[in-house]
Amino acid sequence: MSKLIDFKLIEEAKLKLETLLSPTPLHYASNLSRIFGAEIYLKLECFQPIKVFKIRGAYNKILNLSDQERKKGLVTASSGNHGIAVSYVANKLNLNSIVCLPEGANPSKVNQIKKFGAKIVQEGENYDDSYKNAIQIVSDNQSTLVHPFNDPLVIAGQGTIGLELIEQLPTLNTVIVPIGGGGLISGISLALKHFTNDVKILGVQPQGAPSMFTSVQQNKIVRLNSINTIADGLAAKEPGNLTFEITRKLVDDIFLLNEDEIRKSIIDLLIEENILSEPSGAASLSALQHYNPSPNEKIVLLISGGNISRQLINTLFQK
Amino acid sequence: MSKLIDFKLIEEAKLKLETLLSPTPLHYASNLSRIFGAEIYLKLECFQPIKVFKIRGAYNKILNLSDQERKKGLVTASSGNHGIAVSYVANKLNLNSIVCLPEGANPSKVNQIKKFGAKIVQEGENYDDSYKNAIQIVSDNQSTLVHPFNDPLVIAGQGTIGLELIEQLPTLNTVIVPIGGGGLISGISLALKHFTNDVKILGVQPQGAPSMFTSVQQNKIVRLNSINTIADGLAAKEPGNLTFEITRKLVDDIFLLNEDEIRKSIIDLLIEENILSEPSGAASLSALQHYNPSPNEKIVLLISGGNISRQLINTLFQK
Repeated sequence: MSKLIDFKLIEEAKLKLETLLSPTPLHYASNLSRIFGAEIYLKLECFQPIKVFKIRGAYNKILNLSDQERKKGLVTASSGNHGIAVSYVANKLNLNSIVCLPEGANPSKVNQIKKFGAKIVQEGENYDDSYKNAIQIVSDNQSTLVHPFNDPLVIAGQGTIGLELIEQLPTLNTVIVPIGGGGLISGISLALKHFTNDVKILGVQPQGAPSMFTSVQQNKIVRLNSINTIADGLAAKEPGNLTFEITRKLVDDIFLLNEDEIRKSIIDLLIEENILSEPSGAASLSALQHYNPSPNEKIVLLISGGNISRQLINTLFQK
Repeated sequence: MSKLIDFKLIEEAKLKLETLLSPTPLHYASNLSRIFGAEIYLKLECFQPIKVFKIRGAYNKILNLSDQERKKGLVTASSGNHGIAVSYVANKLNLNSIVCLPEGANPSKVNQIKKFGAKIVQEGENYDDSYKNAIQIVSDNQSTLVHPFNDPLVIAGQGTIGLELIEQLPTLNTVIVPIGGGGLISGISLALKHFTNDVKILGVQPQGAPSMFTSVQQNKIVRLNSINTIADGLAAKEPGNLTFEITRKLVDDIFLLNEDEIRKSIIDLLIEENILSEPSGAASLSALQHYNPSPNEKIVLLISGGNISRQLINTLFQK
């Protein structure tokens, strides 16, 4: 595995990104710490300029493309957040981009992708349909694919979170990370476990989309027939070969969450710590209900993003 | 005025507090910046361990008391947030404390005061009634008053925010600060204007509680007959003599906000920047509607606190 992605790639990503993106805050969560009897910290990736960690991987990948690759235009598939990232970076670098999305994509995410100027192809039922569309466009036009997770440079970009965590809280014990395709947890695991194997990395997935969980359990990449979750950012039918390999080797455990747990975590995070997260972002908090922390354990929850629709907010508070 | 509160008092407060409290984040607000055509930053005092800046002034005041003054027990009056601060600090230092509150105080604030162990005296209609009760207890028991705003050490504690801002954004142009009794804006003004007179300090008050606004306008301390606002943290019938003098001399302008503007700002802050604030804390955002920023102006909004009741959250999203 170390052949697939070298730690150096994450260090190089850090050098590329540090002039473009400020480190996100690591917030000590006083109320959650009291409730769970441990030291809980929140890594606020929802405070990125596009409200989601995906900006790191997309920026790192696109900055590493050759001029020729850039000129051909960028194509990606996404359930939403990675599409925002590619559209944002393409806009900053004055490149053309196409984002393939499923029909049911979160409208507030679609609007943001539009706002930054990407062309949108919105067809099919889920991310996998969008991915097929993206591959078709790449093959028809020889354009450049920016994969949402299964790419060493994308994983290395997300891995810069791990380097920030080491600086912000060198004594951290445990990190809890939501898993969709697995790019985020792969990057963070590679970064943190480079320093010490004593750091525990825990993943979370929705019960309605347990692709990485099932793949790790069966020790092979499993493709799910169908997925169903409000955590649109975690809706992947299968992990990538890179992210599967890294997760299998470096992640200590994966918890599955039901939809009510995820909904409740959005509300708890808002009430206890005043932060509004999207469902995928709050999932790491749900995991604490399944995990018995030691009294002084320093636990970081990855609050991966904040692109939640107004409709969902209203629903959550209208009960 | 410089005789009343020396800049040195703020520097000393910083030295006392920096081992106890982490600096709060200064968050670049991408969406608000686009909307208002300026560089908008949020100073997140809602991320303090008790979710409000009041912890700074209370800590600084109480740490400066003599052993004898501490032993006599602490008494304070508050609409809520300062009471949480005194109860929290008393708990940390193992001191007795009494907090006088109005009957209608925000129940979530009352619960927090209880949680940290202060004795509560909840009587009367508003903060001024509570203040009378506090004075009576101090006089009956020779206990030690911790004034919520009109005290040099409390003002100096709040002033440490100004020192943090200078470190976090040395090129800031404008700071917008909510005003209740005036301790927050006094401390910040003293700190920032020590470095340069080019920094613009703008205050905001509710139309329903314009005590500092009216006092500055009439150039004397005015006591309002009645006040009415959802921004319970800003509900003071009159400023203190210290805070009035400082505000009159150092604050560039004060805007008045109606209740709908304040409500709307809570929602806007949540939707655009994913931060849940209490009404007083969101008031600084409302002021942007009354202010015409220059294109590259660096504006800091003081998000002073996040102790909002669940009931108000529900009300805001049930329309």
